[in-house]
Amino acid sequence: MNPFEKLTEYFGEFPGIGPRQAKRFVYFLLTKNSSYIEEITRLLNEIKKNTTICNSCFRFFQNNQNLGNICLICSNQNRDKEKLMIVARDVDFETIEKSRAYNGLYFILGGTIPILEKDPEKRVRLREISKRINGDIKEIIISMNNTSEGENTIDFLKQYIKEKFNNLNIKISTLGRGLSTGSELEYLDSDTIKNALENRKG
Amino acid sequence: MNPFEKLTEYFGEFPGIGPRQAKRFVYFLLTKNSSYIEEITRLLNEIKKNTTICNSCFRFFQNNQNLGNICLICSNQNRDKEKLMIVARDVDFETIEKSRAYNGLYFILGGTIPILEKDPEKRVRLREISKRINGDIKEIIISMNNTSEGENTIDFLKQYIKEKFNNLNIKISTLGRGLSTGSELEYLDSDTIKNALENRKG
Amino acid sequence: MNPFEKLTEYFGEFPGIGPRQAKRFVYFLLTKNSSYIEEITRLLNEIKKNTTICNSCFRFFQNNQNLGNICLICSNQNRDKEKLMIVARDVDFETIEKSRAYNGLYFILGGTIPILEKDPEKRVRLREISKRINGDIKEIIISMNNTSEGENTIDFLKQYIKEKFNNLNIKISTLGRGLSTGSELEYLDSDTIKNALENRKG
Amino acid sequence: MNPFEKLTEYFGEFPGIGPRQAKRFVYFLLTKNSSYIEEITRLLNEIKKNTTICNSCFRFFQNNQNLGNICLICSNQNRDKEKLMIVARDVDFETIEKSRAYNGLYFILGGTIPILEKDPEKRVRLREISKRINGDIKEIIISMNNTSEGENTIDFLKQYIKEKFNNLNIKISTLGRGLSTGSELEYLDSDTIKNALENRKG
Repeated sequence: MNPFEKLTEYFGEFPGIGPRQAKRFVYFLLTKNSSYIEEITRLLNEIKKNTTICNSCFRFFQNNQNLGNICLICSNQNRDKEKLMIVARDVDFETIEKSRAYNGLYFILGGTIPILEKDPEKRVRLREISKRINGDIKEIIISMNNTSEGENTIDFLKQYIKEKFNNLNIKISTLGRGLSTGSELEYLDSDTIKNALENRKG
Repeated sequence: MNPFEKLTEYFGEFPGIGPRQAKRFVYFLLTKNSSYIEEITRLLNEIKKNTTICNSCFRFFQNNQNLGNICLICSNQNRDKEKLMIVARDVDFETIEKSRAYNGLYFILGGTIPILEKDPEKRVRLREISKRINGDIKEIIISMNNTSEGENTIDFLKQYIKEKFNNLNIKISTLGRGLSTGSELEYLDSDTIKNALENRKG
Repeated sequence: MNPFEKLTEYFGEFPGIGPRQAKRFVYFLLTKNSSYIEEITRLLNEIKKNTTICNSCFRFFQNNQNLGNICLICSNQNRDKEKLMIVARDVDFETIEKSRAYNGLYFILGGTIPILEKDPEKRVRLREISKRINGDIKEIIISMNNTSEGENTIDFLKQYIKEKFNNLNIKISTLGRGLSTGSELEYLDSDTIKNALENRKG
Repeated sequence: MNPFEKLTEYFGEFPGIGPRQAKRFVYFLLTKNSSYIEEITRLLNEIKKNTTICNSCFRFFQNNQNLGNICLICSNQNRDKEKLMIVARDVDFETIEKSRAYNGLYFILGGTIPILEKDPEKRVRLREISKRINGDIKEIIISMNNTSEGENTIDFLKQYIKEKFNNLNIKISTLGRGLSTGSELEYLDSDTIKNALENRKG
């Protein structure tokens, strides 16, 4: 395999990229001058060097302010330390944070747990979440996609946390179900209707 | 315009049907024998003859059981008469009813109110809903699509009902917002996240 | 099953219509007044009464000009009687005729032959095409979709006609392959490229 | 703008990549270890260093066999030197070459000419194609997408070549039009039908 094919294969591993588009990436980069590629290489290395995983929430962050290993959110005194939200991935954290609807702390699980997975610890940060949970926390909000894998992850985490931290009396909650923006009544499944009725606002 | 083209035009008025598919319908019917078309014609006329609009909820129903002008749901003594759900169309009623999540009564509004509509009465059954509301009702649930036109209809109805029936002290509610089945966190808008957080279940 | 459900089932047999849209058709018709339904019924019956299958090309046509059983195209003295185009369905005939690119005669096969079909005679008008072919015809153009079922139909007809009318020395042709409107080189399969190269115009 | 945002912006320039997917690329790379990024960087630089534009056909190629500046196809004595195919981009060349339907030489135009473009020379390799055309060539096949911009490029090149090389008596051809794989008769435009009929095979 020549370097062209090898690089095509690498790009083919990028999320959502098939072999055809991967090849187009290589051709695209060939049309660019050297300084373009040097700049991408430089940025990649800079980010890799300056990006740390937060020791508390396990999200990636730019430690350019000598913060040590704790990110700006986890070290922010104005955030509500009694709430901990567990999300699957960094992008989920970003979406929540951008909504400005939540002022508590986060924990990035690092993935989700497929149904019938025998070894969940290999998939998600179980030991890390165990260490993170303590008596300061009054509520854990498990925020997962409303898919079967998301549901499975919620079920597993609920039981896991209840078993291990039964003594702490932590409330475990999940995101409310109902109509999302754009939902049309005619196409809703019975489950969503049921939840939308239970969560109705007066 | 010959009969073929005229019928094509009629089929083109059917919901969701363009001129090409309308023409295919005519060809399809041409390949069928006379008894097929007679049967469709017969059913159409039978339905038209036997279908009544319920005097209470304004949905179409088959009055084949000498029910008079009140449908089986409105005349069912086991339904919760203190709850009235307003939906836009018959299909919305069907989706809700199929979910088995609701045991109150219904009212079919007959449409929705577009933004900036100057004469809402032409669009929806305002006089009819006015006659339908009375002191027996404790809660009106306005169930509309989560779209701008649905929102506009909700806003209009809320104000309309409050103004006219202020004395009755009726609770007005709307379907809860949140994650619907299949929703992925990454793609949620801030509004849905906010509502999903507020409606979170513990 | 009540008439409503029966009619929904009938509409569900219409080409391209699923159960949900079929039900919407019934509701749509319920909102229309009686004269609307009467007009559709009248048109249906008029078309059924006035539509004949042409004894020569087997397409449906409106015999409102006392033409007997031969359509306007088959009886048109200006059409080229030495060319016969076989198409699968009436809509294919219409598309070809609308292009004004062809001045010969047609034959509607009435369908296509699936791969591995053991009894092609049940699917398409084989006896009828046998009767239609005669010594006046110099070329038969088999115009089928460029799909595996279209290809299969072409292969079958070619062999069938050659065996039965070997003595007549009729040229059998098929539509040219190449780039169709909108085709992008990057996404073409090797077969299409090969044909486009062979058919290149100078 | 921090390095993370800058790199997201760079990835957003990649063909077919929006801001959301660009960000996902960055997160994806953050989860990879340093050796992964080093390998991509190394491949990028190696390809950039070892890739040359062929002096004859102007496609990118890996000059790892001390070929000088002429690619393996242009220097292959078994290719038909009397045929020259002009394509817009490297990927088009690849698709044609993979079909094994063509044994002549190529020329990569480097783009297409939009309608009403006043300065085509800025868009495509006009001077280079002028230098490339010579008396050895008997046929130039202009292979463009069957789109309005492809048509415009064909029209421009035909006139350009005829004016400049009138004396050489070169045949100029374009790819044949007709049904491409999967085409259905019912949806064909009149232009494609006309061409498919002209190119019909007997």
